[in-house]
Amino acid sequence: MSIYQTRREQIYDWMARESITLVMISDFEDRRDPSVRWLSGQPGDALLFLSVDRKSLLVPWDINMAMLYANVDSFIPYSEFNRSSIKAIKGAAALFKTPLGSRVEIPPTTPYPQFLKYIEAVTDFDIICRDNGASPEMEKARAVKDSEELKIYQKVSAFTCDITDLLEKQVRAGKLKTEADIAHFIDAEGRKRGCEGTGFETLAAGPDRSFGIHCFPAYTGGAFGGQGLSILDYGLKHAGYTSDVTLTFAREPLSKQQEKMLTLVEKAYNLALAMASPGIATRDIALAVEAHFAKAKKFMPHGLGHGIGLEAHEAPNVNTRAENSWVLEPGMIITLEPGLYDPVQGGCRLENDVLITETGAEVLTNSRIIRL
Amino acid sequence: MSIYQTRREQIYDWMARESITLVMISDFEDRRDPSVRWLSGQPGDALLFLSVDRKSLLVPWDINMAMLYANVDSFIPYSEFNRSSIKAIKGAAALFKTPLGSRVEIPPTTPYPQFLKYIEAVTDFDIICRDNGASPEMEKARAVKDSEELKIYQKVSAFTCDITDLLEKQVRAGKLKTEADIAHFIDAEGRKRGCEGTGFETLAAGPDRSFGIHCFPAYTGGAFGGQGLSILDYGLKHAGYTSDVTLTFAREPLSKQQEKMLTLVEKAYNLALAMASPGIATRDIALAVEAHFAKAKKFMPHGLGHGIGLEAHEAPNVNTRAENSWVLEPGMIITLEPGLYDPVQGGCRLENDVLITETGAEVLTNSRIIRL
Repeated sequence: MSIYQTRREQIYDWMARESITLVMISDFEDRRDPSVRWLSGQPGDALLFLSVDRKSLLVPWDINMAMLYANVDSFIPYSEFNRSSIKAIKGAAALFKTPLGSRVEIPPTTPYPQFLKYIEAVTDFDIICRDNGASPEMEKARAVKDSEELKIYQKVSAFTCDITDLLEKQVRAGKLKTEADIAHFIDAEGRKRGCEGTGFETLAAGPDRSFGIHCFPAYTGGAFGGQGLSILDYGLKHAGYTSDVTLTFAREPLSKQQEKMLTLVEKAYNLALAMASPGIATRDIALAVEAHFAKAKKFMPHGLGHGIGLEAHEAPNVNTRAENSWVLEPGMIITLEPGLYDPVQGGCRLENDVLITETGAEVLTNSRIIRL
Repeated sequence: MSIYQTRREQIYDWMARESITLVMISDFEDRRDPSVRWLSGQPGDALLFLSVDRKSLLVPWDINMAMLYANVDSFIPYSEFNRSSIKAIKGAAALFKTPLGSRVEIPPTTPYPQFLKYIEAVTDFDIICRDNGASPEMEKARAVKDSEELKIYQKVSAFTCDITDLLEKQVRAGKLKTEADIAHFIDAEGRKRGCEGTGFETLAAGPDRSFGIHCFPAYTGGAFGGQGLSILDYGLKHAGYTSDVTLTFAREPLSKQQEKMLTLVEKAYNLALAMASPGIATRDIALAVEAHFAKAKKFMPHGLGHGIGLEAHEAPNVNTRAENSWVLEPGMIITLEPGLYDPVQGGCRLENDVLITETGAEVLTNSRIIRL
């Protein structure tokens, strides 16, 4: 049984329990959902239908691509449905002989006006669109990595560590001077190792721009690593899975306030890492970091971390929001990324990827504050 | 009056006509909407509220960034609303003293379950979520470029032409050998000229991979420009606006079928360009190209083109779909990009950016089939 089939079996079991006969998952430019790739191997631009009688149908935009990548029971090119998801639902139901009146679940991201169109056009079935259905079930399953995913993370983490070490050397040697130099170096080194690319646009911010949580543009032809604080946030994507790390490069002399920011962020990171273990609520970790910063009258304007996987940001959340009820489990991979930002002093952030183990946590990456 | 204010005035006029008191536009990672940038200058990660009494409020994720880029009447950081769009709507209504019972329009991309939450939580107003409201109004306005946008397109088109010429030279000289070489060259040359980056991930497919409409991964460390057909699809992004061109590199000897594909695609492009002028329905152009290919028993598995602007794909559509009712107007900028793909022969596509003028069309870019 392929890993994709094994993953689909989990969803079929859930469908049987929930009396859902057909599920549609959609991964297109307007709304990406890598669960299509997780369940079929198809890297995107497709609808995936799962039928409770344990059959799958992929409806890809590009059939040539699907023939190469997808592991499913059947294919029908999207063009055969005139690229209409309504026609595709009807086609899937015909293929699977879905009984009249069955419950058919569509993505919870379905826009309200589109939902009304489904209701009007698909009258043979009971169309279900909800936040607490198939989608969070897949999200939950994806939050705990399986053995195939852990193997991929061994690789992508090792590549990331190598490249971080190389980067430090090259910056110290004065060979990577601009933000764009850094970004291209990462991308080239990653692809040399067989990565699909970066997991997101590399953010490289020299001292003049590091005050932004996410600098804009992501990188420029401007200098990186000059006096003060530079931030580099990058991830590699291998076989669909992304790493996500942030380094701060601090070139002396630094102001007292900059030194204080670095110390506070490093302490916040160590505090968070010490707490990361199975059974801990991620919100409690985030609240502890918030309290640590509050003692120094500082405020972190973003969440402490997040899960990583087929998306750069996925479950579990690691933030202080009241509705965050995630509890860490072995096999989860999260980032911890405390940061502080100041319009005058610039910003610093330290981020590593952390695998939750049976007994605690394993830091997969080697990101750090680098003093130049 | 700033260009952003001028653009907002169009929307305020529309709101008054439609009796809409408040409009919310949302541009976040899960659903991007560059209309926020179009109306405020803020490049992303923000909610924008427009009140019919001609006032605007930006609710940015990163207030430091907003202070640099945004041109609006007022700001409130998203963190003050605990990053809840429901709280932000209530906050905006309080700021603008929106009368009870007013019509408040939210994005048509609002997921159905989220729509239910708005309805439940925001009881003081009439929440409107529809496909034919503010969003297509902005889409329509953005489809016809204003003088500021045309100035930007003069620049980004010139950069694109330069880089295409440089690319041809470098590939002929054997200096750019791999797909990744090409992608990094484009990105570096673009940023050197002050571009924000590329408009989308550069697609560079050597002869082994050019059969895919959009190759996956977008580019690799593999060879580009070897015997047969290689496709390069790229765009530069300058001041938010993207170009979008595709070159085919054909290295001889070519098979008869490959020669035929090149000839058919070039003819399709010329046919489409000859038709592009004000008053023509874009669907008619796409149908003419479809018929041209059908005569040769060929099928193009994607649309003929699309508008470009703050998004790589935006209005107007240029395809054969029955619901495509777009008619070309002066100031529209569209791509024309006929292509043919074969699992054995590989693929070819030719794409340029075309500005519709008062009398016809002006080709802004210089993409072509390059024989090596």
